[in-house]
Amino acid sequence: MDRDEYLERLGATTEEAADLFEHFEERSAAGRTHHVLTATRHGVERGTVIVEESDVVVRGYPSVPRILVLDPGIPSFFEANETVAIEEKLDGFNVRIAAVGAGSGKPLAFTRSGYVCPFTTARAHERLPLEEFFSSHPETVLCTELIGPETPYTTHDYEGVDTHEFRVIDIRDRESGAPLSVADRRSRCEEYGFGQPRHFGRTEPSTARETVEETIDELDAAGREGVVLKSADGQSMVKYTTESQHHEELAYAFSLPFDHGRDFVFSRIVRDAFQAAELDGTDARLRARAHALGESILEPMVSTIRDVADGETVGERHTVRGDPDSIDALLEHLREQSLTLEFEADRREDDERVVEFVKVAESSRDRIRYYLDGGTRDE
Amino acid sequence: MDRDEYLERLGATTEEAADLFEHFEERSAAGRTHHVLTATRHGVERGTVIVEESDVVVRGYPSVPRILVLDPGIPSFFEANETVAIEEKLDGFNVRIAAVGAGSGKPLAFTRSGYVCPFTTARAHERLPLEEFFSSHPETVLCTELIGPETPYTTHDYEGVDTHEFRVIDIRDRESGAPLSVADRRSRCEEYGFGQPRHFGRTEPSTARETVEETIDELDAAGREGVVLKSADGQSMVKYTTESQHHEELAYAFSLPFDHGRDFVFSRIVRDAFQAAELDGTDARLRARAHALGESILEPMVSTIRDVADGETVGERHTVRGDPDSIDALLEHLREQSLTLEFEADRREDDERVVEFVKVAESSRDRIRYYLDGGTRDE
Repeated sequence: MDRDEYLERLGATTEEAADLFEHFEERSAAGRTHHVLTATRHGVERGTVIVEESDVVVRGYPSVPRILVLDPGIPSFFEANETVAIEEKLDGFNVRIAAVGAGSGKPLAFTRSGYVCPFTTARAHERLPLEEFFSSHPETVLCTELIGPETPYTTHDYEGVDTHEFRVIDIRDRESGAPLSVADRRSRCEEYGFGQPRHFGRTEPSTARETVEETIDELDAAGREGVVLKSADGQSMVKYTTESQHHEELAYAFSLPFDHGRDFVFSRIVRDAFQAAELDGTDARLRARAHALGESILEPMVSTIRDVADGETVGERHTVRGDPDSIDALLEHLREQSLTLEFEADRREDDERVVEFVKVAESSRDRIRYYLDGGTRDE
Repeated sequence: MDRDEYLERLGATTEEAADLFEHFEERSAAGRTHHVLTATRHGVERGTVIVEESDVVVRGYPSVPRILVLDPGIPSFFEANETVAIEEKLDGFNVRIAAVGAGSGKPLAFTRSGYVCPFTTARAHERLPLEEFFSSHPETVLCTELIGPETPYTTHDYEGVDTHEFRVIDIRDRESGAPLSVADRRSRCEEYGFGQPRHFGRTEPSTARETVEETIDELDAAGREGVVLKSADGQSMVKYTTESQHHEELAYAFSLPFDHGRDFVFSRIVRDAFQAAELDGTDARLRARAHALGESILEPMVSTIRDVADGETVGERHTVRGDPDSIDALLEHLREQSLTLEFEADRREDDERVVEFVKVAESSRDRIRYYLDGGTRDE
């Protein structure tokens, strides 16, 4: 591999190829070698994949910064003369879909960290007209969220989504990462019948706060995640989330406290506290949020402690549905990532296999067991 | 300094003096050089001080492990045939007092990390008959908690303590750290008129739970910290704390979220959740704890965010009272530790100087300011 050439094509902020390529890992997928960047480095996104054999680069999806207050968060993030599009942020699994086989070979679905997920790839081919899209736009990457109650990664319920669906959140040049404008992306998605996140309108930065606050109220009441604000050209984006999302994430984290609690807790509290300071107009409103926050932390953790005491399996429960081959490939893929799986159901419905399984949360299970047996904590 | 000799006297678990002594730091105090261990290493406690000039070693106070459940926490920690003493754990500042001047020179008060605190030293000489005690027991260390609303380190209120007082929690051999038995320590404290933590009785490990649970209920209702359980010989000790203490510590941490929030939050939630799982018999009791937990996290943080928005100083407020010289020395001591102080009051009451000051929480002030100005968070 000519590292210097790829270094230049990636536009890395270092001139030493080794500085960047020491963070790449080799993986085999779909019969080819993928070189995958395992962490954001030198201006190149985590999950960036180089497929040397077909000379294809698929850039990682950029990290989206977050504002903690709407005002002056929005006007200070965007240029004063920009138009800002307000779109829904979905609680799903970020998946990039690209045709990396140099014209031949099926498009693949890449996770945020650059793994090819065989299940998601199969589902994408079922649900989206990929051949048609990539024959016209071979050098783009479809950036999507896989949402719904039946995915191997997330389980958030969306009204009208019974199993799982894709929503296209961005269409980008796969190598440079340059996005289509919001308007062009939305019309191209319509052209191909791709599902999209809801669009709540356009606004000037200086007057965005009111619209965003109303949108957030509406999404919060429906238990939905939040919004992404984008400049009309698609280049700048920033996110802002709902109280119900903060609490839902804490409830998830504290249902598996020694796997996720420590990493999740502080950042979600910070989001909630700044939102409260800006938007909770009364002491009663603040008190209600505090109570919901406390419930989201304590009750799932106590429930899990009691489950461990009762000898029950603790972990993330998922249901997946699809053709038997891709379910097999998924389970193998998850095991390769050192996950311990326990199966709770496995059945056929028409031509599909439906599997219910638990990703066992071994750290939580073992630490809770240790403390319940009287183990001490040194602090 | 003959490091090998001190290595042996300290009973370190390494045979290489350099392994231990690379963690020592030289400080000057009371006209002598103190060699201070800055972290627990090789079986030697953090805050251990060697005063080479007078050939004195003062061992650090040991870290006290914590149980998260009473049953089987207590019976699995102690031997079945041991008697367990239940004493109150106080929310104060752990200070060791020792005569390190080889007979001459005043006894000094050492903080947990081995600093000599001039203010605490002066207060200890006022409040405790140190000359009398150390002339009879020169090779011991008095392990104390400095409690009360007027100390430069903690501010927890105790009924009947108007300013600050010492409670002797242990008397140990200063070099080996070997403690007096609980009974001998309590009678020796009585002999010298030293204040002591409350003693709630003795019990067998197998039947301790009931007494400890009742004691914890009583302490919790009074807003006090918890208990330390000690084997009768004083060798083994373990702690357990109240719900009100968990929440009070969270309220403190989240009043200064970017100084203490991240470090404090997870461990206090863990304590509260295991206590809830064992002791909260009803859903209503658990729900009430969850609400109190949420209030302790969210409301102080929102209050601090609003204070920063209003341009008010945020930090730990303390009042100290004492002779003018030791107040001067204290303020210099705090500044040497890179604390930024702001003064809110400074007056004379009789012969004493009374100073109210704030240890400015610069990280919280600056991070909150940044986010309130619209700064983004990359996660």
